[in-house]
Amino acid sequence: MPTETSSQPGPRTNEADSRRFSISVRVYYEDTDVAGVVYYANYLRFIERARTEWLRDAGFELAQIQNELAAVFVVRRVEADYHRPARLGDLLSVSCEPIEVGRARLIVRQRVEKNGELLFAAVVTLAYIAADLSGPRAMPPAMRAAMLVRSETEKVLKQ
Amino acid sequence: MPTETSSQPGPRTNEADSRRFSISVRVYYEDTDVAGVVYYANYLRFIERARTEWLRDAGFELAQIQNELAAVFVVRRVEADYHRPARLGDLLSVSCEPIEVGRARLIVRQRVEKNGELLFAAVVTLAYIAADLSGPRAMPPAMRAAMLVRSETEKVLKQ
Amino acid sequence: MPTETSSQPGPRTNEADSRRFSISVRVYYEDTDVAGVVYYANYLRFIERARTEWLRDAGFELAQIQNELAAVFVVRRVEADYHRPARLGDLLSVSCEPIEVGRARLIVRQRVEKNGELLFAAVVTLAYIAADLSGPRAMPPAMRAAMLVRSETEKVLKQ
Amino acid sequence: MPTETSSQPGPRTNEADSRRFSISVRVYYEDTDVAGVVYYANYLRFIERARTEWLRDAGFELAQIQNELAAVFVVRRVEADYHRPARLGDLLSVSCEPIEVGRARLIVRQRVEKNGELLFAAVVTLAYIAADLSGPRAMPPAMRAAMLVRSETEKVLKQ
Repeated sequence: MPTETSSQPGPRTNEADSRRFSISVRVYYEDTDVAGVVYYANYLRFIERARTEWLRDAGFELAQIQNELAAVFVVRRVEADYHRPARLGDLLSVSCEPIEVGRARLIVRQRVEKNGELLFAAVVTLAYIAADLSGPRAMPPAMRAAMLVRSETEKVLKQ
Repeated sequence: MPTETSSQPGPRTNEADSRRFSISVRVYYEDTDVAGVVYYANYLRFIERARTEWLRDAGFELAQIQNELAAVFVVRRVEADYHRPARLGDLLSVSCEPIEVGRARLIVRQRVEKNGELLFAAVVTLAYIAADLSGPRAMPPAMRAAMLVRSETEKVLKQ
Repeated sequence: MPTETSSQPGPRTNEADSRRFSISVRVYYEDTDVAGVVYYANYLRFIERARTEWLRDAGFELAQIQNELAAVFVVRRVEADYHRPARLGDLLSVSCEPIEVGRARLIVRQRVEKNGELLFAAVVTLAYIAADLSGPRAMPPAMRAAMLVRSETEKVLKQ
Repeated sequence: MPTETSSQPGPRTNEADSRRFSISVRVYYEDTDVAGVVYYANYLRFIERARTEWLRDAGFELAQIQNELAAVFVVRRVEADYHRPARLGDLLSVSCEPIEVGRARLIVRQRVEKNGELLFAAVVTLAYIAADLSGPRAMPPAMRAAMLVRSETEKVLKQ
């Protein structure tokens, strides 16, 4: 049962689209359920890892945002489609691309793929709010600019 | 810091609507994150508990469905809106009501409330498929009938 | 596949030992893994639910401890034995009994049983520390007293 | 708030000890709780990822073991010490080294470190059993040999 050495988790750029950010995620026992596949809530964990690394790639860490800017991103809406199941040991590509970068709102499209096959897709709406959850905050201009530079298309709306 | 004895988790019928099924869910440390609120993926765990108990209330257990009927319910689509955050120690009411009961497809509306205030709402589309994931299966008529009896309105579609 | 109405989750006293505190925990899909049983880390979630309800039963809520007393319990050590696996749909009894109640340290014995059969047992050492994690704090005397009253045996050490 | 580019998750060999296997694990929101640190059960998820990658590094994948050899590793005992908390955004080193490689039993020592500082340590006892959980199985000789080659010291017992 020797196995080929698999590529290891870590951010990479999708070959098919050099501007889409993605990370690799390995499926472990913790992610699966008795039906033999990844438990449906865990895809939301996977795509948050990709959002976090996408933001880190743009120069911003969530811990610093919370501690130094006293702000957090909170999810307002998720639309998720489950196309095919991921299984134990799969090496997944999890992408994040912004489709709207507003003053206090961010909408991203996220995909989970295995060997180029789409397993899961979601559109996630996030709000940028005060860390005490008291209300919306404006994202720093540098943060928005870094997000826009990393957008896949020219069509990202700048509200 | 004495606390009033809280009502305990367990299925109950919503007072405001005697036909909507709901369970109580307590928020523990495991459910929260460093932002101080329930982690967004965990609402999907809460609503699956309500779906499971709703089905058990209808006379069907998921373990028996998998082992004896060789079938499983898998999630195909989730549309979720996060209205207000739940916090450590909250006692939540989590409901499940069918809005479409097809031959091999089930669509349910689910709500998470705290003291009557809506925190989270989702519409979840599930498929009833073979346990080996090979394709759709028809739900047993008794299962569909039990679901329809528990539907909140007369408008549930019978495809 | 009709099922008997199962007893519902909620604190109860073990019949065999009227002084041992326990809660009921239902096993859902979220708790299982592809091996068909409860994932090993999830027993730590179950026993923390029992610790939390045991403390609530004693008149103390963790959210209030964190917000009003500026303190938290943190786990220092776990010794856990996995005897038999729990499975999807199982209704488990999860107990908590103190075996040492010190000034800033608490040691509890916790068991997970199914129909009186022991599945999992652990001894958990917790420290009571400042909420900013700066160092140990003395538990309020009323808290320690309430814990001691709920101890199963007379042998609990009062350091 | 620009951040240095951090090294990315992936197996690596500990510099201080060229024979100890470790992987890097990033702490995400999913791993934390409202106390501001990594939730105690989640260290068991981290160390299982390291065990899985250590085994993959030895040429064995858990999915293949389950599907082709009809066997699984199950945890029998965990002794875990929590020394210092990990926090959101931390990049952790998680190691795995065998301390006993028996016919149907494996004992490993696992450590979670941050910048060389020990945060968490555990000794985990695993059994190699039939996938239907019917009883112990003997590990294939090639598996045991690969484990022994990867042991840190010469003192690993060969029962």
